[in-house]
Amino acid sequence: MTKLIGNAVVGQSGGPTAAINATLAGVIRGVKEDVANGAIKTLYGMRNGVQGLLEERLVDLSAFFDCEEKIDMLEHTPAAALGSCRKKLPKLGEDDAVFEKLLAIFKKYDIRYFFYIGGNDSMDTVAKLSAYTKDHDYEMRIMGVPKTIDNDLVVTDHTPGFGSAAKYIAVTMQEVIRDCAVYTIPAVTIVEIMGRDAGWLTAAAGIGRVAGGVAPDLIYLPERAFNKDEFFEDLRAKLAEKPNVVIAVSEGIRFADGTYVCEGFGVASVDAFGHKQLSGTGKALEYAVKNELGCKVRSIELNLPQRCAAHVASATDLAESVSVGRAAVKAAGEGVTREMMTIVRKSTSPYVFEVGHNDISVIANQVKHVPAEFINARGNNVTDECAAYLMPLIVGEAAPKYKNGIPQFLIIE
Amino acid sequence: MTKLIGNAVVGQSGGPTAAINATLAGVIRGVKEDVANGAIKTLYGMRNGVQGLLEERLVDLSAFFDCEEKIDMLEHTPAAALGSCRKKLPKLGEDDAVFEKLLAIFKKYDIRYFFYIGGNDSMDTVAKLSAYTKDHDYEMRIMGVPKTIDNDLVVTDHTPGFGSAAKYIAVTMQEVIRDCAVYTIPAVTIVEIMGRDAGWLTAAAGIGRVAGGVAPDLIYLPERAFNKDEFFEDLRAKLAEKPNVVIAVSEGIRFADGTYVCEGFGVASVDAFGHKQLSGTGKALEYAVKNELGCKVRSIELNLPQRCAAHVASATDLAESVSVGRAAVKAAGEGVTREMMTIVRKSTSPYVFEVGHNDISVIANQVKHVPAEFINARGNNVTDECAAYLMPLIVGEAAPKYKNGIPQFLIIE
Repeated sequence: MTKLIGNAVVGQSGGPTAAINATLAGVIRGVKEDVANGAIKTLYGMRNGVQGLLEERLVDLSAFFDCEEKIDMLEHTPAAALGSCRKKLPKLGEDDAVFEKLLAIFKKYDIRYFFYIGGNDSMDTVAKLSAYTKDHDYEMRIMGVPKTIDNDLVVTDHTPGFGSAAKYIAVTMQEVIRDCAVYTIPAVTIVEIMGRDAGWLTAAAGIGRVAGGVAPDLIYLPERAFNKDEFFEDLRAKLAEKPNVVIAVSEGIRFADGTYVCEGFGVASVDAFGHKQLSGTGKALEYAVKNELGCKVRSIELNLPQRCAAHVASATDLAESVSVGRAAVKAAGEGVTREMMTIVRKSTSPYVFEVGHNDISVIANQVKHVPAEFINARGNNVTDECAAYLMPLIVGEAAPKYKNGIPQFLIIE
Repeated sequence: MTKLIGNAVVGQSGGPTAAINATLAGVIRGVKEDVANGAIKTLYGMRNGVQGLLEERLVDLSAFFDCEEKIDMLEHTPAAALGSCRKKLPKLGEDDAVFEKLLAIFKKYDIRYFFYIGGNDSMDTVAKLSAYTKDHDYEMRIMGVPKTIDNDLVVTDHTPGFGSAAKYIAVTMQEVIRDCAVYTIPAVTIVEIMGRDAGWLTAAAGIGRVAGGVAPDLIYLPERAFNKDEFFEDLRAKLAEKPNVVIAVSEGIRFADGTYVCEGFGVASVDAFGHKQLSGTGKALEYAVKNELGCKVRSIELNLPQRCAAHVASATDLAESVSVGRAAVKAAGEGVTREMMTIVRKSTSPYVFEVGHNDISVIANQVKHVPAEFINARGNNVTDECAAYLMPLIVGEAAPKYKNGIPQFLIIE
């Protein structure tokens, strides 16, 4: 294969994570260290993903090459330093104007390398751009670099960003469960965790079981239908054993008929302005348990901090996130295109991974669920096998540098 | 003063914090190092505060003396390792049976030293026990050792436990504000922070302003009446400047007529079971802003993690928390009684503190509010002076030891 010489552009897309900037740092390192062997001239960053690219809002990232400290700070900075977008490209053939525009911009800036860091929707963008540029004979190396706290991409063992969110959840559970244990009066605490369709993050609440810590008494994932009667039965049994019961639930849990628990239990809420408001799943369950058992109940929605808590990022996750970014540059330089970088688990104990890549078309628009063997028979907890599988991903503490008591994060001006 | 030789008991009471066990560790260290100069024989811990003491649920803490590693682990463990209670003792003279019982227990176990780690209600317990034992000529050294994330105790410059909660809030604001900044569409994020009557914790959200970080655009404390019209006016002005506006609010903010914002804005909510449910302040404001401005709005309730996030505890706070515990033992050994330990700020820059103590009767049952000069004229933010006052309290990272990706905390069996 002849060497393809040109410029590169990297973008971030979809929901931010604590590790997506580590992958950006990996791409920057890859270009800086010239792992593409002279093929890449200038590295641009697109502001707000393809949305900013369409507006030609580009930033020259070469400025980073001179400053190791800045790359290091970027690695530990949460959210998306280049900004993100939720733009979904149209189906090919339906409205090609946007693709024509993108192709014109690629030509204008001599962009031959396209690195897109994102989740499921972003891989859809990568797949469509791959197909379009191929159809139009524009030689280009297009690489998807995965990130999502949801861990719901197929083919890759897990996704960069997941480990740090999982660590936040597992660590927070250690603290919350202890906090809940200080009083002797019966109390139920419900922790709502992100994950609309896949229960990976909620499963991470159970890691303490095999890691020498504590874990929730009951864990409910969206992979299994939520049975109200069994739930109250199991909760009563736990309360008979101990006064403080802690429950972790995915925001996306549904009843057998497909209704979300937050709809089925909370739909009648009307706010002060007369609008119907859908409470969260945790809040809906809080009301339901209060109504059924009459005991003290509270709910905690982990909310944004679970995806941006860089101060308690997983060192394993950050290292992998950098690796996939760097490896994407190397692979593209070697001629790989229209693929997504993957993490290949070689061994769980000791934990060993390799970086690979796979055809994007078999990855985009699919959801990887928590497998059946990772959920117990009753559907109210994860198995030890699941916790043991997840544990290596949260190992190691990758703290940012602090000054005046707060972490120092990088802003790309 | 003659030396008072006997046993000691230490208890924890009220809401847990990330630093209350550090104070317990300080008391243990004080007795271990014999700062009371031979006066204290055995150190007991009371399970669940005075409630457990009344049931004679005591644990001999001398087992800690042989293991520095255990004391160190205790220092970094959140919540209350001895358990806590919310028991308020009756007024003296109203129902003295409970005091008689406590006195009998003191005599039975030869308890001459009583250390009670807690907040406002706990200092009330200390004041009442002080008065009762004095009236009944039982020679005893009774010391209140402050802890509360609310920082609402008078006389002391601030309270142990506050600095760690403030650090969690200031750090989380760095992350959440960056997370909110990744998209270009207008969005309002409301962060609800603990503090029913005093706005100290919410004020901590503003520390980033002087610490080289970021801070919310608007901050509302319960010390100032919440004006709905000014709020929407100020919010519109901020949204005209930038797409992403972040607001921090105390859970306890009220309108000028004294109605809580969560009642005034959210009272009409009825859940699926037909019960009136009071949404939190953040959620109530979320609905109100959505209704008024129609833009994307979300609310985040920091909830329990703000008081138990030991993984991001302030090193300054933990060191002070240990100091007050240790110093309480020393002071009691020297004859001090019926006093609360205090932190005396000698200088802000560089930050220097001393440990002192003060008559409990002038401390109990009062609330220290954020002073007027710490809030701007418009009442929608804190001043730089406030942020600079708070900053030293969050300096330094006191991480627990990790194993398998999660922090190692101590459980007292």
